[in-house]
Amino acid sequence: MSYNLLKGKKGIIFGALDENSIAWKTAERVFEEGGKFVLTNAPIAMRMGQINALAEKTESEIIPADATSIEDLENLIEKATEILGGKLDFVLHSIGMSVNVRKNRHYTDENYDFTQKGWDVSALSFHKVCQTLYKKDAMNEWGSIVALTYMAAQRTFPDYNDMADNKAYLESVARSFGYFFGKDKKVRVNTISQSPTPTTAGQGVKGFGGFISYAEKMSPLGNASALDCADYTVSLFSDLTRKVTMQNLFHDGGFSNTGVSNEVIEKFSE
Amino acid sequence: MSYNLLKGKKGIIFGALDENSIAWKTAERVFEEGGKFVLTNAPIAMRMGQINALAEKTESEIIPADATSIEDLENLIEKATEILGGKLDFVLHSIGMSVNVRKNRHYTDENYDFTQKGWDVSALSFHKVCQTLYKKDAMNEWGSIVALTYMAAQRTFPDYNDMADNKAYLESVARSFGYFFGKDKKVRVNTISQSPTPTTAGQGVKGFGGFISYAEKMSPLGNASALDCADYTVSLFSDLTRKVTMQNLFHDGGFSNTGVSNEVIEKFSE
Amino acid sequence: MSYNLLKGKKGIIFGALDENSIAWKTAERVFEEGGKFVLTNAPIAMRMGQINALAEKTESEIIPADATSIEDLENLIEKATEILGGKLDFVLHSIGMSVNVRKNRHYTDENYDFTQKGWDVSALSFHKVCQTLYKKDAMNEWGSIVALTYMAAQRTFPDYNDMADNKAYLESVARSFGYFFGKDKKVRVNTISQSPTPTTAGQGVKGFGGFISYAEKMSPLGNASALDCADYTVSLFSDLTRKVTMQNLFHDGGFSNTGVSNEVIEKFSE
Amino acid sequence: MSYNLLKGKKGIIFGALDENSIAWKTAERVFEEGGKFVLTNAPIAMRMGQINALAEKTESEIIPADATSIEDLENLIEKATEILGGKLDFVLHSIGMSVNVRKNRHYTDENYDFTQKGWDVSALSFHKVCQTLYKKDAMNEWGSIVALTYMAAQRTFPDYNDMADNKAYLESVARSFGYFFGKDKKVRVNTISQSPTPTTAGQGVKGFGGFISYAEKMSPLGNASALDCADYTVSLFSDLTRKVTMQNLFHDGGFSNTGVSNEVIEKFSE
Repeated sequence: MSYNLLKGKKGIIFGALDENSIAWKTAERVFEEGGKFVLTNAPIAMRMGQINALAEKTESEIIPADATSIEDLENLIEKATEILGGKLDFVLHSIGMSVNVRKNRHYTDENYDFTQKGWDVSALSFHKVCQTLYKKDAMNEWGSIVALTYMAAQRTFPDYNDMADNKAYLESVARSFGYFFGKDKKVRVNTISQSPTPTTAGQGVKGFGGFISYAEKMSPLGNASALDCADYTVSLFSDLTRKVTMQNLFHDGGFSNTGVSNEVIEKFSE
Repeated sequence: MSYNLLKGKKGIIFGALDENSIAWKTAERVFEEGGKFVLTNAPIAMRMGQINALAEKTESEIIPADATSIEDLENLIEKATEILGGKLDFVLHSIGMSVNVRKNRHYTDENYDFTQKGWDVSALSFHKVCQTLYKKDAMNEWGSIVALTYMAAQRTFPDYNDMADNKAYLESVARSFGYFFGKDKKVRVNTISQSPTPTTAGQGVKGFGGFISYAEKMSPLGNASALDCADYTVSLFSDLTRKVTMQNLFHDGGFSNTGVSNEVIEKFSE
Repeated sequence: MSYNLLKGKKGIIFGALDENSIAWKTAERVFEEGGKFVLTNAPIAMRMGQINALAEKTESEIIPADATSIEDLENLIEKATEILGGKLDFVLHSIGMSVNVRKNRHYTDENYDFTQKGWDVSALSFHKVCQTLYKKDAMNEWGSIVALTYMAAQRTFPDYNDMADNKAYLESVARSFGYFFGKDKKVRVNTISQSPTPTTAGQGVKGFGGFISYAEKMSPLGNASALDCADYTVSLFSDLTRKVTMQNLFHDGGFSNTGVSNEVIEKFSE
Repeated sequence: MSYNLLKGKKGIIFGALDENSIAWKTAERVFEEGGKFVLTNAPIAMRMGQINALAEKTESEIIPADATSIEDLENLIEKATEILGGKLDFVLHSIGMSVNVRKNRHYTDENYDFTQKGWDVSALSFHKVCQTLYKKDAMNEWGSIVALTYMAAQRTFPDYNDMADNKAYLESVARSFGYFFGKDKKVRVNTISQSPTPTTAGQGVKGFGGFISYAEKMSPLGNASALDCADYTVSLFSDLTRKVTMQNLFHDGGFSNTGVSNEVIEKFSE
């Protein structure tokens, strides 16, 4: 499937780890739609993943960058605009990691060094990306910046831990930066609040299996897959959505507005 | 328990059917807190219920009124201000009924005469109450109008049927009328979005047992009872909440902001 | 601009009055994207408008229908599927009218016959459209139903009158029907909450000029135009947004999440 | 005015700087309602403010604490429960400070050391307070924890800077901790989203004068004052609101749900 929706558009895609990643699927779909881009990820994630295969497949270059480092981000944006031959039209931020989760620290027993590290990687990094793009005037008018988030920013999912608070911060950055990027540069900034997705990262969260099964039964259209999310992101990068900004967009088969489903009630009626 | 929070305040309470009613508990609590009021209900509901016992207990008079009839509402408000000796400080609207639910018409197979009747009783009646109070200038400054609603106005609960749409309309009326009542009369208008409550009306909804059990397990503090709701309503009638207006206030033990609870996930992890 | 995003897709478009209409622009854009459709409007609106010119331009047929009449809707859907040669992939509901507004009845002085008529035309008609489509099993899997709405459903705009309450009802219908259409037919249902738009209908609202100027200054990307809305609707009809359902999607240049803009504060700083 | 609503209840109040502070007014009102408490503030804020006068007036002791220091918080809670003779029933968190704002760093030009410091003080401190209370099991059942916040967490106010993102994080902490405090201890956690208030801190924000005048004209009941907020907080500490948890409660005279007011439109109609 290709509509050439992104023909002539250039961008940066953060966070493609392996073929389960939403960023990976997005890169593939953006490529199919005619977009050109630079791939980036943290050096450590690059060693673990298979990003080289993706780069080859999508005819793109890789520039490693730690998204918490302004120096790295400046280098990334300079090189990317050089490689792509001009300013950017789209950016995908798909980065998140909680040290508390990794180290099995419960939400009521956080290690605050871990908390700060996770906040920097998962939430503040989005501000850093936006600020560096803004200061370098690296986005074209009517460009589109998208970050991935999760509904834990609105409602508590007990195993999601401090990522909930990080995602709330991230979504706020999208609104705040969306205001200034809109006014000053005619660039839109949005977040996609995606169904729980069995990425390599997602699967590491405790209780993920039970939760994804619950979400599937709660969502009238079922959970949205990584590929579905890639398609949706393509629509948000395209010129069809130029006036959508500062929004948190639920992409979840209807989960967010389903109070309960018949399948779930049945489990409690026995 | 009594704090004399409503000493000297006068009002009208709609919708006390029997001792399971939220309006019934509210009348008892308002009376304990020193408030005086007139009770009202539709003539048919009065025949079915035990409102006389409540009137006696709370030293209040009953004025029957069909809340869809402007004539009845005018008569009610005139008589109530006469009986109570002045303008009103509080009004509780606790009225709702879906003919489609009663007649077992599914949401995808509505009878639109039933739909209109339910909308008039459950939603438009709140506009009629507000408009009649407004036109008669029957509310004191810093008075408080409260209507009861349910979260189905935001998220779908499959058995709640067209009451979801009625509640959405009702909540919108609270905002719209809250604007004009605030500007023109310094009166606040809010809705309380209450936990599923085993009132005589609530229990009639299909699948109510399974649903209330699910809600109990989803709510970190458990479901709010009718008595809890009465207490909360007292706080909204009191002078402690004068600047709260045009709000829909969730009173549900945390259900509304819980994405999932551990107890619910467990059911899906087996 | 054409991407062939809707090639092979068939649908019905309600509410194209004249070239200022959002539905008119949508019809033009859907046609450009390869979609085929039937146009419909109320008989009275058809006499006033220029829908024949649109039909010619988009190679489509017109079937008059009063969207409050089940008989008319049944006839429309039967004929449309016959003309188009199969089930439908998309439906646009762009219908709204308040008799209270037309007759200059203030929100605090509604004529309830007017209120009911406006509710039937503006809100219940969407349920009727959905229910008729559902009962006739007229939608293909992964079809998309969109209705246009306005942010007055969430926040009060004093001159928007009872249309606010109608839009709240309409948005609730989208969620409620979205649940059943999703579960049973894999069809999505969403609303677009559009910037104030100088359509022929919109311009009739009192104070519209001042309001649209305020909205323009509040929206970081400026107000979304009718053509912008048509583009966005195309994206929601396309296969790129299959898992978006039961959502109310703000399409407003950022107005909805802007608390205040510098331009607006300046007016109050003098 | 006193109802003895908080008779027998014990707590901690953070953040009373001077008589313009919301925390100051809250301490006065809690005292009037029969509550006993310990006052606390950061050592530096104590030197600048007049907290001793408040302590004398409310017969309370002061325990200095840096709310970003776990050691200080542990000491505070141990001493407070010792002084008050038992576990706590209420806690008010009224702490916020942005170094970027103080140093005139624009949102698009943040110094990230400043950002982290402000996040720690304004947002993470609330997690630290909750976690220390939780680990020490210092709250009585049906206790109430309240933090003050601002609507910039939902919508952008251009001069509010990174405090918007901090407040979004804070509100998320209230939901996340509300889940665990509810389940495990029957304690509720909420935030009050208050009108712009001319506190000593608030007045330092650029453009505050124009903004507060705008907010006054947008709010049907006018802006809520610090004293109004104290009253509302009393209601949330009382036993009347036991089942309200994980909520962000707008206390703003209706600002949050007003799309525009007639007074504001008029400025744009000239």
